[in-house]
Amino acid sequence: MRVIIIGGVAGGMSAATRLRRLDENAHIIVLERTGHVSFANCGLPYHVGGVIPERSSLLLQTPQSLAARFRLDVRVATEATRIDRENKVVHVRNLATGATEELPYDKVILSPGARPVRPPILGIERALTLRDIEDTDAMVAAVRGQKTAVVIGGGFIGIEVAENLVHQGLEVALIEALPQVMAPLDPEMAAPVHDALRKGGVDLHLGSGVTAIGEATVTLADGTELPADVVVAAIGVRPDITLAAEAGLTVGERGGIAVDANHLTNDPDIYAVGDAVEKIDALDGSATLVPLANTANLAGRRVADHIAGLPTSNRPVLGTAIVKVFDLTVAATGANEKRLQASGRPYRAIHTHPASHAGYYPGAEGMALKLLVDPETDAILGAQGVGGEGVDKRIDVIATAITGGLRASDLAELELAYAPPYGSAKDAVNMLGHVADNLRSGVTRSIQWHELDAAVAGGATVIDVRTPGEFAAGSIPGARLVPVDELRDRVDELPEGLLVVHCAVGIRGHTAVRILAQLGRDAVNLDGGYKTWAAGRDSRD
Amino acid sequence: MRVIIIGGVAGGMSAATRLRRLDENAHIIVLERTGHVSFANCGLPYHVGGVIPERSSLLLQTPQSLAARFRLDVRVATEATRIDRENKVVHVRNLATGATEELPYDKVILSPGARPVRPPILGIERALTLRDIEDTDAMVAAVRGQKTAVVIGGGFIGIEVAENLVHQGLEVALIEALPQVMAPLDPEMAAPVHDALRKGGVDLHLGSGVTAIGEATVTLADGTELPADVVVAAIGVRPDITLAAEAGLTVGERGGIAVDANHLTNDPDIYAVGDAVEKIDALDGSATLVPLANTANLAGRRVADHIAGLPTSNRPVLGTAIVKVFDLTVAATGANEKRLQASGRPYRAIHTHPASHAGYYPGAEGMALKLLVDPETDAILGAQGVGGEGVDKRIDVIATAITGGLRASDLAELELAYAPPYGSAKDAVNMLGHVADNLRSGVTRSIQWHELDAAVAGGATVIDVRTPGEFAAGSIPGARLVPVDELRDRVDELPEGLLVVHCAVGIRGHTAVRILAQLGRDAVNLDGGYKTWAAGRDSRD
Repeated sequence: MRVIIIGGVAGGMSAATRLRRLDENAHIIVLERTGHVSFANCGLPYHVGGVIPERSSLLLQTPQSLAARFRLDVRVATEATRIDRENKVVHVRNLATGATEELPYDKVILSPGARPVRPPILGIERALTLRDIEDTDAMVAAVRGQKTAVVIGGGFIGIEVAENLVHQGLEVALIEALPQVMAPLDPEMAAPVHDALRKGGVDLHLGSGVTAIGEATVTLADGTELPADVVVAAIGVRPDITLAAEAGLTVGERGGIAVDANHLTNDPDIYAVGDAVEKIDALDGSATLVPLANTANLAGRRVADHIAGLPTSNRPVLGTAIVKVFDLTVAATGANEKRLQASGRPYRAIHTHPASHAGYYPGAEGMALKLLVDPETDAILGAQGVGGEGVDKRIDVIATAITGGLRASDLAELELAYAPPYGSAKDAVNMLGHVADNLRSGVTRSIQWHELDAAVAGGATVIDVRTPGEFAAGSIPGARLVPVDELRDRVDELPEGLLVVHCAVGIRGHTAVRILAQLGRDAVNLDGGYKTWAAGRDSRD
Repeated sequence: MRVIIIGGVAGGMSAATRLRRLDENAHIIVLERTGHVSFANCGLPYHVGGVIPERSSLLLQTPQSLAARFRLDVRVATEATRIDRENKVVHVRNLATGATEELPYDKVILSPGARPVRPPILGIERALTLRDIEDTDAMVAAVRGQKTAVVIGGGFIGIEVAENLVHQGLEVALIEALPQVMAPLDPEMAAPVHDALRKGGVDLHLGSGVTAIGEATVTLADGTELPADVVVAAIGVRPDITLAAEAGLTVGERGGIAVDANHLTNDPDIYAVGDAVEKIDALDGSATLVPLANTANLAGRRVADHIAGLPTSNRPVLGTAIVKVFDLTVAATGANEKRLQASGRPYRAIHTHPASHAGYYPGAEGMALKLLVDPETDAILGAQGVGGEGVDKRIDVIATAITGGLRASDLAELELAYAPPYGSAKDAVNMLGHVADNLRSGVTRSIQWHELDAAVAGGATVIDVRTPGEFAAGSIPGARLVPVDELRDRVDELPEGLLVVHCAVGIRGHTAVRILAQLGRDAVNLDGGYKTWAAGRDSRD
């Protein structure tokens, strides 16, 4: 059995090593067009920033180590130029020597990855991208001794690069065409990320396009000219389908290689995995692009299983993702509200602002969590978290709950590990479940920050149930202050009609809504309280 | 509706506040025999240690604040002395004035908690316990200016108190009657906890009983006399069933109040929640005692729901628990191997030693994980984790997976949030799933550290596939060194019969087993590698 794997990182290398463990006799050739295989692609920005000081730390394996341990025939700086499906031969070219060769195969595993998008901007050829070790070396060299940088694109890579260029002492501007960074987040959840970037020293330009890249500057659509010794393009990536398309393999509607439940392309001898491939979206089964290392690794492994005759799988993906933004952790799983709105799918949104662990134990950090729930089935559709310590844990728990088919209300009953240094007796995830349960059972009702203006226009009154001190420090325009503890005695002061109640985060608001409802008043809780409302307001600035 | 809640912490207070939110008109009386309600009982050891410097931080609510917000009639220093079920009256006594009163009720919620076990040791009356604010004040006063302490009992509280007394500068000895601390852990998982305690400065005495407590000493069964200005008894807790038993309520086989699916005792007007109550074990449905705050809180809430006519639940409990031991995090969920062995239930054990996050990103910390799996159904039976950062996250994810009914192999496919500061592309939990899948599908076989001696006695040969350097630093007696990369070329050196292969943690061992199996040899992987074996050996010292 001759297996040729095209692409020697993540999915490709997972396939190679797994296949060797399953089949000691297969002839496994790994072709990698860069000079390195199995490198730590997610670590590249951190080497640029000096956070990972040693370049060698990024090189997890070498062709030599892979030959010794796994008897892999790994060929770096070697490009697959053509797949001849009829003759079952891969044409390859050694990029160092120019020598070409034809390699016969029984099976091909395509793992070509994705390529950075390069928009047609004047001067774009000066922009650096960051995808492999060669890119990293180039960026490290380009940054040395420079003072200013412009990073174009506020996605994961753009943010990581911007932060790391700050670590290297550069003045960094980050340009994002949309009104927010981090597309997986909804706008009110992105607001604290903007704060963190600015606080970290990044000059953030939102809703802003780049019109030209000059020799030492970047010009924005509004005419702003930014100094730019270094320019980085991090607009996104696009599946590298050249080889696949030329070989006549099916490309899907999202522009990635189409595969079946066994990760097979339309050729029964050619598999494809990783960033180049379309995945199945967990929300609605549609095709989606999820360029993440963990998904790629798993698919590579499953392809090896299939070749070896073991059961395999190609599960729909949630797209769980996380990024560090200076001291902030930002994570998401599943669908966000923007997408649910766009698709017309009904949903219920829940915002909370819990602490990472018991407030009375030192070091507790705040976070904002958002849960999206199917109002009919109580299914969890997605979640987002932004904050300090423990955001990763909560998103991982929710991603696991989704995969396990738990309902939003079930989150209330999860037995999570509690001691004061780690969580709360009612953990942040449990609290999301309690809120979901209260909404589902009708014990409470809520409205979202972006629905408030319409409610007020329709005659609703906003009641702030916080303390006078909190009210004085910042309040919603038009809100009337009635602290929750005074509500029962002062209910007659309140006008008829809908009362939109809010506190800082939603907890006192919930109590207030229950008091008012039982007194016969029409009351709803402003979901997430003043904090979520203020973040939503900031997102519109 | 008059509801009397007996016990104003955790379960009792959760019931009270939830009930008020559901029923504005109920007359809710909370009786608490100590001087404080709703205090942070899990924080008490940390106030003793000065980690939580302000005593006021522990007092989350007061009778006044609860009256203002929730119109609760909270009576501290008030003991319920008798429940007269026939006349539906609770007899109470004010512990400050001695005044008695009879309070009529429609419903009673019992949340009396548990009392520390006081073994019949000579001089035990000098031993302090830690259960409420009064205990905490007493311990803070008793510790002041003292030099030595003996803590009896190596469970959660004993360990937390020992660590915190070290923080206060005392020389602390910890006495545990069993050969290990932390009963939820299996012995090889407890070994690093012993190391952490000793490294933290605790004088640890395992398998050791206390025979007498003197005026300034504690005497152990082996005659050792330890200096003890302060003595703390943390042997465990026992449900406080006095009131319930005297009222003729059913007490279960485990010594806790028996309740049904609605948390009702055998009296349809009396509920019971919290540490005093027997729960349903998630593994086998048996009665169990789980004195944890999160379980108590949830039950309290559910009782309020039931009184208010909402759907309720009384889910079986996993008993997920966690404790900080100096810099170590120790957590567990579900059943452990000791229990599965004792019950004769078949299981498969998996040990791994992953890093908290990508090894190439700074600050990665090691951990030991253990997963217990039903070999027939692939169900997850339990898990344990001991290590640095991220142990809590992995145990929470596994607890969620168990609740969601995910199989052990499914852990491989969980989409957990990955970026280098937070995890690995194949997360620690994914890796447990991969191992489980390999064992289930027969791709590999393993034996446990405690099975090695018998295997060797039966003729097996131990093959150490690590490097010569690792071998020289410590090896299993009798093991032969054949580094994995040389295995294919040196297989003829190996004797016939069973080969028990091992590396440091099990990963190279897995590759080695696959190589040997495909070369026709009978090979098994020593689960968890040298690290688990060494921890198991240490646990027998």
